[in-house]
Amino acid sequence: MDRIITLTTDFGTRDPYVGIMKGVILGINPRATLVDITHEIEPQNVRQGAFLLAAAVPYFPTGTIHLVVVDPGVGTARRPVAVQSGETLFVAPDNGILSLALGREFRAVHLDRPEYWLPDVSNTFHGRDIFAPSTAHLSLGVPLQAMGSPVGDLIRLDPIARQLDTPLAVGLPFRTRRAILGRVIHIDRFGNCITNVPKSMLTLVYYTKSTLSIAGRSLQGIQRTYSDVERGQPLALVGSTGYLEIAVREGSAASQLGIHLGDQVTLTISA
Amino acid sequence: MDRIITLTTDFGTRDPYVGIMKGVILGINPRATLVDITHEIEPQNVRQGAFLLAAAVPYFPTGTIHLVVVDPGVGTARRPVAVQSGETLFVAPDNGILSLALGREFRAVHLDRPEYWLPDVSNTFHGRDIFAPSTAHLSLGVPLQAMGSPVGDLIRLDPIARQLDTPLAVGLPFRTRRAILGRVIHIDRFGNCITNVPKSMLTLVYYTKSTLSIAGRSLQGIQRTYSDVERGQPLALVGSTGYLEIAVREGSAASQLGIHLGDQVTLTISA
Amino acid sequence: MDRIITLTTDFGTRDPYVGIMKGVILGINPRATLVDITHEIEPQNVRQGAFLLAAAVPYFPTGTIHLVVVDPGVGTARRPVAVQSGETLFVAPDNGILSLALGREFRAVHLDRPEYWLPDVSNTFHGRDIFAPSTAHLSLGVPLQAMGSPVGDLIRLDPIARQLDTPLAVGLPFRTRRAILGRVIHIDRFGNCITNVPKSMLTLVYYTKSTLSIAGRSLQGIQRTYSDVERGQPLALVGSTGYLEIAVREGSAASQLGIHLGDQVTLTISA
Repeated sequence: MDRIITLTTDFGTRDPYVGIMKGVILGINPRATLVDITHEIEPQNVRQGAFLLAAAVPYFPTGTIHLVVVDPGVGTARRPVAVQSGETLFVAPDNGILSLALGREFRAVHLDRPEYWLPDVSNTFHGRDIFAPSTAHLSLGVPLQAMGSPVGDLIRLDPIARQLDTPLAVGLPFRTRRAILGRVIHIDRFGNCITNVPKSMLTLVYYTKSTLSIAGRSLQGIQRTYSDVERGQPLALVGSTGYLEIAVREGSAASQLGIHLGDQVTLTISA
Repeated sequence: MDRIITLTTDFGTRDPYVGIMKGVILGINPRATLVDITHEIEPQNVRQGAFLLAAAVPYFPTGTIHLVVVDPGVGTARRPVAVQSGETLFVAPDNGILSLALGREFRAVHLDRPEYWLPDVSNTFHGRDIFAPSTAHLSLGVPLQAMGSPVGDLIRLDPIARQLDTPLAVGLPFRTRRAILGRVIHIDRFGNCITNVPKSMLTLVYYTKSTLSIAGRSLQGIQRTYSDVERGQPLALVGSTGYLEIAVREGSAASQLGIHLGDQVTLTISA
Repeated sequence: MDRIITLTTDFGTRDPYVGIMKGVILGINPRATLVDITHEIEPQNVRQGAFLLAAAVPYFPTGTIHLVVVDPGVGTARRPVAVQSGETLFVAPDNGILSLALGREFRAVHLDRPEYWLPDVSNTFHGRDIFAPSTAHLSLGVPLQAMGSPVGDLIRLDPIARQLDTPLAVGLPFRTRRAILGRVIHIDRFGNCITNVPKSMLTLVYYTKSTLSIAGRSLQGIQRTYSDVERGQPLALVGSTGYLEIAVREGSAASQLGIHLGDQVTLTISA
């Protein structure tokens, strides 16, 4: 069947790993349409992967299957899972990477049926041996419940509040009555610094009467678009992913303001 | 319909932006064949994008649609356009990026019909919200004139002569009776330094009796192929794109000769 | 026909070269399914290309055509060839790059029939002008023997024993009665250092009673999987490609142990 299968990994594109997974998929379902989301998740950075996946999923059509392999626990007891949420399917290790992409309602199975794996399973590359063939079988119409035993709950990323001590603890932002505390969850190619603060948290007062602090700098209010400031000037805005981001018009906020992945951002309502 | 759609952007492959655009396209036309030209245009470098696009376009079959998003003016009044030139279609911001790929004859429309956009249009990612869905609708056979209001003229890159003061002013080369003045418009992965001087400017005398100057070095004449010099030696030749390039056989001209993007190159007929 | 065509090159993804080859292929066979293995072979590193190709080929289905362009000899007399091995086809320069992927039995032809090339052949980009169109014609069902003159033998990479003086001489490993001598043939994105020592050379005693030496360090025995050591600790194991590799659990062996491409590795049976 002509199902769309997306691939999101931390494998990079220098090695043949992604190509190998595609070979395995096409060997089982030659008519699958394969789309790369990204293969440049920081090695083993589950939180960054969770965020980037969640940014992409809403733009794919009904029936898409998302194959996600950021898998620091390969070879340990962590479970490979397949998950259905509405008409969208996910195949991934159960390590929290689906936390931000899944809705509240979903059904999950543990991929524990070797008949849907490659005959030889290595200890180090389950992307090839378990995840890719399972995804291909799902794309051929094998029902979710046939792929493995039901799973009651999935591992979720912890919210930020409990993890402020680790630099990449960028789960959920934290809110008080007059402030929002978040972190930089992704720096894109343009140097835009995307935080974990969603648009839904930003009440009107934050746009007009707030001060944003990051990396020792302050910015006033939240702008609508890059061209609301002069070229080369910094601004805060809600970016295309629906999250608060710090940018520089036609420049790089990361390098101009010295912002790094995991940096703390604070939005405070002005007195 | 099984149309080929190419994608050329400055989005890189680290972020999910390109995957998101593909999701939008396939949601509208699941049968499109998507081909990446490159996503590693220098951020917001319209001139480099124009050159690399023009190098690729002639090798794609009739009916291909080229989607091009290098868009420093996103969120300002610059127009999104669709352009037909022969049987080839282009979708891009009107900022000069199509200058080198288009022939003299073309028809263009301003993509000003929201029914061909995504329902919500952000201020920062028109690639996803306007360009990708418009491209997908064109690939389904919507006629160009239905996509927007006719546009009389498009923005063109300025020729080099007026812009010698800016380092990346690499539009058109400049010719006198006994010399050609150009610039390095692209440095490829091998370190080959491709200039903006097309084969058509190079009369026979330049091959046999000229001196090329670049980055404080001189080279005699223009060679036919890499193997016309010894390994490790520099040479000038007409590269595969049809432009004059400076190379080192089995080496990197950029690093060995210290050449940078935008560097001036002069070809002088020997006395 | 819906044939799978893979692409492996040293062209990188910054330049439009790979996109151009895909345009040429789709112009001849619009129904081909194109899959990238990698385009980030080190420029002109035929041995690395041979290894990475061989790692990927077994995972693609019967009938796949592998197009491989790592071609330091472009413009010289080296032959472009097409090769059939079982039901798998290869198109590449005859420079040894197919050495590790081909079985003992194969048929090869010299791609010397210009009717299967582009009309204009450059001296510098045979990937576009000869290899891509030849691959596309093969994918349409043109028989191998129609594509060119039979070739009796192909160039093979030399085994390591004769080449220990050159740092990238990583052909075949060398074995004595109580030791194996190999080299690091590839360092992947995670910093895993993959050697040219195949699983088949590793008799049981090497797993339990051997010392591995690399970059001035010693490791005891060969482990089964990453989790057999603590986080941050180094280990030797048979990696997913079926070759001995040196890794660090949830870390980078290359940077932590200071290992480089071409480094020598010695496995010695303990006294």
